[in-house]
Amino acid sequence: MKALKLIILLTLLNLSAFADNGYRLWLKYDPIGQTKVVDDYRKEISSIYSPKSSETINIAINELKTGLKGLIQKEIPHDQAINAGSIVLLKEEDLSTYKVSADVPDHQDGYIIKNILINKKPVILISSKSDVGILYGVFNFLKTLQLELPIQNLSITEEPKIENRILNHWDNLDRTVERGYAGFSLWNWQTLPGHIEQRYIDYARANASIGINGTVLTNVNANSTILTPEWIQKVKALADAFRPYGIKVYLTARFSSPMELGKLPTADPLDPQVIDWWQKKAAEIYKEIPDFGGFLVKANSEGQPGPQDYGRNHADGANMLAKAVAPFNGIVMWRAFVYSNEVPDDRAKQAYNEFTPLDGKFDKNVLVQVKNGAIDFQPREPFHPLFGAMPKTPLMAELQLTQEYLGMSTNLAYLATLFEEVFKADTYAKGKGSTVGKIIDGSLENHSLSAIAGVANIGNDINWTGHPFAQSNWYAYGRLAWDHELTSEKIASEWIGMTFSTDKASADSIEKMMMGSREAIVNYMTPLGLHHLMGWNHHYGPGPWIKNKPRADWTSVYYHQADGKGIGFDRTATGSNAVAQYFPEVARQFANLDTCPEEYLLWFHHLPWDYKLKSGNTLWNEIVKHYYLGAEQVKGMQETWNALEGKVDPEWHNSVKQLLAIQYDEAVWWRNSCVLYFQSFSKLPIPENLPKPAHDLDYYENLEFKYVPGI
Amino acid sequence: MKALKLIILLTLLNLSAFADNGYRLWLKYDPIGQTKVVDDYRKEISSIYSPKSSETINIAINELKTGLKGLIQKEIPHDQAINAGSIVLLKEEDLSTYKVSADVPDHQDGYIIKNILINKKPVILISSKSDVGILYGVFNFLKTLQLELPIQNLSITEEPKIENRILNHWDNLDRTVERGYAGFSLWNWQTLPGHIEQRYIDYARANASIGINGTVLTNVNANSTILTPEWIQKVKALADAFRPYGIKVYLTARFSSPMELGKLPTADPLDPQVIDWWQKKAAEIYKEIPDFGGFLVKANSEGQPGPQDYGRNHADGANMLAKAVAPFNGIVMWRAFVYSNEVPDDRAKQAYNEFTPLDGKFDKNVLVQVKNGAIDFQPREPFHPLFGAMPKTPLMAELQLTQEYLGMSTNLAYLATLFEEVFKADTYAKGKGSTVGKIIDGSLENHSLSAIAGVANIGNDINWTGHPFAQSNWYAYGRLAWDHELTSEKIASEWIGMTFSTDKASADSIEKMMMGSREAIVNYMTPLGLHHLMGWNHHYGPGPWIKNKPRADWTSVYYHQADGKGIGFDRTATGSNAVAQYFPEVARQFANLDTCPEEYLLWFHHLPWDYKLKSGNTLWNEIVKHYYLGAEQVKGMQETWNALEGKVDPEWHNSVKQLLAIQYDEAVWWRNSCVLYFQSFSKLPIPENLPKPAHDLDYYENLEFKYVPGI
Repeated sequence: MKALKLIILLTLLNLSAFADNGYRLWLKYDPIGQTKVVDDYRKEISSIYSPKSSETINIAINELKTGLKGLIQKEIPHDQAINAGSIVLLKEEDLSTYKVSADVPDHQDGYIIKNILINKKPVILISSKSDVGILYGVFNFLKTLQLELPIQNLSITEEPKIENRILNHWDNLDRTVERGYAGFSLWNWQTLPGHIEQRYIDYARANASIGINGTVLTNVNANSTILTPEWIQKVKALADAFRPYGIKVYLTARFSSPMELGKLPTADPLDPQVIDWWQKKAAEIYKEIPDFGGFLVKANSEGQPGPQDYGRNHADGANMLAKAVAPFNGIVMWRAFVYSNEVPDDRAKQAYNEFTPLDGKFDKNVLVQVKNGAIDFQPREPFHPLFGAMPKTPLMAELQLTQEYLGMSTNLAYLATLFEEVFKADTYAKGKGSTVGKIIDGSLENHSLSAIAGVANIGNDINWTGHPFAQSNWYAYGRLAWDHELTSEKIASEWIGMTFSTDKASADSIEKMMMGSREAIVNYMTPLGLHHLMGWNHHYGPGPWIKNKPRADWTSVYYHQADGKGIGFDRTATGSNAVAQYFPEVARQFANLDTCPEEYLLWFHHLPWDYKLKSGNTLWNEIVKHYYLGAEQVKGMQETWNALEGKVDPEWHNSVKQLLAIQYDEAVWWRNSCVLYFQSFSKLPIPENLPKPAHDLDYYENLEFKYVPGI
Repeated sequence: MKALKLIILLTLLNLSAFADNGYRLWLKYDPIGQTKVVDDYRKEISSIYSPKSSETINIAINELKTGLKGLIQKEIPHDQAINAGSIVLLKEEDLSTYKVSADVPDHQDGYIIKNILINKKPVILISSKSDVGILYGVFNFLKTLQLELPIQNLSITEEPKIENRILNHWDNLDRTVERGYAGFSLWNWQTLPGHIEQRYIDYARANASIGINGTVLTNVNANSTILTPEWIQKVKALADAFRPYGIKVYLTARFSSPMELGKLPTADPLDPQVIDWWQKKAAEIYKEIPDFGGFLVKANSEGQPGPQDYGRNHADGANMLAKAVAPFNGIVMWRAFVYSNEVPDDRAKQAYNEFTPLDGKFDKNVLVQVKNGAIDFQPREPFHPLFGAMPKTPLMAELQLTQEYLGMSTNLAYLATLFEEVFKADTYAKGKGSTVGKIIDGSLENHSLSAIAGVANIGNDINWTGHPFAQSNWYAYGRLAWDHELTSEKIASEWIGMTFSTDKASADSIEKMMMGSREAIVNYMTPLGLHHLMGWNHHYGPGPWIKNKPRADWTSVYYHQADGKGIGFDRTATGSNAVAQYFPEVARQFANLDTCPEEYLLWFHHLPWDYKLKSGNTLWNEIVKHYYLGAEQVKGMQETWNALEGKVDPEWHNSVKQLLAIQYDEAVWWRNSCVLYFQSFSKLPIPENLPKPAHDLDYYENLEFKYVPGI
């Protein structure tokens, strides 16, 4: 049986003259290998029926035809009548015409997929209140086939928990991408608006297939040029291309645009001319793009202009923009990732301190966009204390898909485990069960406006994401934005089935590798609550020795606080007391050495090198153990992957194999650098049984890297 | 019959679930549509036989298997014995073993493809002195099938006319590409040397398929970082990947590297320390890359450092580097595109003036690399007067594939016609028939060292070249580098057959469109010998009004010299006398108004607006006529293309259709800008029957473009 499966698989792999370059993402639609499954599907699916037509419905029909042709190698016609085996696409408003009663979700994006009888004919109904909901249903139906699941007793009901499921592209107008490691920007501004690349369409398809319904095209470090008439035309062309896929376009607004473009002497948000300029600019944009989503703003942070330049606060700035887009149902997403020119006692505290006093002062079409942790997208951070602390304000979570701090494009890091950890974290804002997920989706405080942002890992590499496995993070983000209660395992299993193989043994071993991947990185980069030890500026490789930079909080020594006595950032009452920003139950847990989870230990505590951990190890030995374990875990991933040769596409296998070899080298580099560096404080030995670092600390400290992408 | 063909074609186009994104270039290997042809091929080809194995031979065998599987949908095995219908790959040295006598070309890269009998079995022999020659033969054989030609009476003998057929990549280490319009650099330096992207392999395949055997990886505006040990490892990884495809790697050498990397106080080419530094650097490179090709150098030009900084000349600089690489059989390609800090009376004269005195003074492994014309890759230029003027020095031609001055990635410009014009131009250096082609291939002066350079139009766009039709220029360059006597028509016809369609009517209309495409651009940009009227710095769009820049020869007014009386650059004896740099026969032809070809008229002559041309038109009316004609020609291309809908791949059709619409707008923009601008001098009317420009000159002069790629 196993041998048979292998033969079928090998035949399949061999069918096409060319290997898979990854462009098709999880929408491959390669022929299903299991004859029995194909036979069943061919019997059960005869045609496509849709009484109405629209751009979106036509896309849904074409996707079905393309998908079915690929998967079951049969042309399924779009028929004028309902047959036995029809896939029937119906808006809810039309159900009664066909004497169908079905519980279609209230949410516009929701849908059902159900085997029912129409005129005594067995059909597969996909129904929604909206065209886009039907498109979502079609993608889900195709996924069911891709995963080779039975389709005789379908009864799927889906609706999103979060309203606006948005990608943030940190893409500059010259097509460089800040913190981008997958080539350059997808947006070929030079040939827009005249040329709509097929890639734009496939980008929209991929997003629609996982429910993403918004995209911020431009970098949060914003450029006002995007708001000039010529560039609005380019944005309009993209918006027109994305619209039928249910995707709204957003832009970042540079706060000083009224000065740069409007030649005003100020960008003060309370200045009538400034207010007027933004209102006219918004009207100009909405004239071209009636469903323009709104603005994302990074203000008074890392040198960006903002309302504080004029003695105003974030609410003043956000509300001014919110009023400009409100007449058109636009929203403003105002980032809480701020830090002022003065270095605070603890950067982790700053966003909370600046924003909590403003709770209740934002207009109702403003969301505050909060990174998952208080520092900056580290391999692991405790959840951001702002979550739960602004009950009157809808808060978005900003997650980072691009691997700025997780090994860029050469490290395999499945991030759903990180995201899941964030969503499930309990803030205790309204007692036990007040998870970050419930704050983001608005349910905890009954906000009707909800949104989530993922900083895209997408570039113009053929496979979109650089590392082939990084596709899984785009996929996982979309799935979690739709339903943050999904588990990482479930999402991985879907993605693997669609991307690699439905062979259980192969899929299981890939899943295991993915599930452990992020923890391996935590271990060899920043174990036990250590954070921000990365190389200066480009964040490539280890840099625990980074010091003497323009700001203390731009150094590593600021974060690890290692000295002869010990290591860690004391954020308890004896230190910065950042822990007090959490609700009491959480604050107590983190502040107390007995209850603080060891993965956050050095985030909250400065401890002596000989501090004893639960394992019985001293802190020094435990740190060393984690660093060595991380590298070993990568070796384990290599072994898993090597065993999959011949069972997955050869081009993917070869590419990932090479990348894992790089990752192993980088893990060892991290391990050696950090262990040697911290040893210079602890003066304690590396246990005898562990391999000695190949070079001395001096060597690692003096490595230099030029032209690292993403800055 | 026609209807039948169409049905077959449509079925074929429909077979794959996805449209063609252009990644496969001319090596598509899609199933052949004509049943009869496929049947014949299936009968005539049974297996592949190769007695020897090497990396290159294995690549040849795999290419055959892949190609045949795609084209005739049959697995052709690599067999241990010769069968009837074997494709037999034999090195010349092995022919006698099989009792075969055949005239294999002397040239290592040459090959034969021949139907012969071995042991009375009819086979197809592909034979060469080298493995790479066999690979070239395999690609040629596959082309024969792609073009659906008969294979019963093959008798092909091929060898290259030029030794080193090289692409120049103006790629920077941050992956921007100077004058690149197809995305960003292919070389993902960050993940090298560990990760060999499939794209590198496919790049090498594509080059090998057209005989390109060298690649300069880095920009002529060079960066010394590429010569550091870490980066040499990255270069080595690419060299290792390219080697089996017969491709040597070259680098650009920044002349000041001994100062920047070696911390020497000087880069004087006669300084012993400098000489020593380069010799050690060369040895270091050759240790890693034993077949490293050598250096390309841009020195003392546009701000680049060079030997003149130390009072030395180009030969001093080139020979110093040549001596460093000579022990390893490396070469130095020294660019003649120079201009000093002092603006000369006529930039067209400068290279000739600087280089002819040095003829005979270069080491024997030095080539001087000369742009096809004396200014800079204009839509049309007379050939460079250096060709023929340095008989003791092997001269390379440098052609530009990337469309810096020909509409970037939005204009369809088939450049083989331009290249053909260059190769066929007669310098009269040794009497009639002393064509540029014969100078480049070394035959005129019996140089054994010969080379040619094409500035690549390749980037990381999925389709490699931005504009789908720009693939044809990569293809044509390779074909002409191999044999500069090929006609543009022949090359176009091959490329179309491999890329689009073997349907004669469709192919003919595509060929016609391609063949006229460059002339259309000449007409709407720079007709009648006008040149360098493009937008400032980025060269996008018209800029005939460009003046008052840091150098006179960086302005348009310098080149067109328009005034109230007339227009054109007087390069005759009454002007700069650049014409005197040509051999007398040519000089007389260009200097004399009766014999000067009208396409070069204003290149050599300043003429009054009412000057009468052969057509009977005044100069003014003729200029206007050309500008309007150019735009109309683009409209004609649009009509041709529209008629091809359904006959070519839908994704290509859609993309090119949009691009032609952009091109038409740009052609009209050029036309209106230039006609209005020149009218401000001529004060003459635009003929009544022609449409009036939509805007006034002021409008066009004030258009601004930001983030134009390529600078």
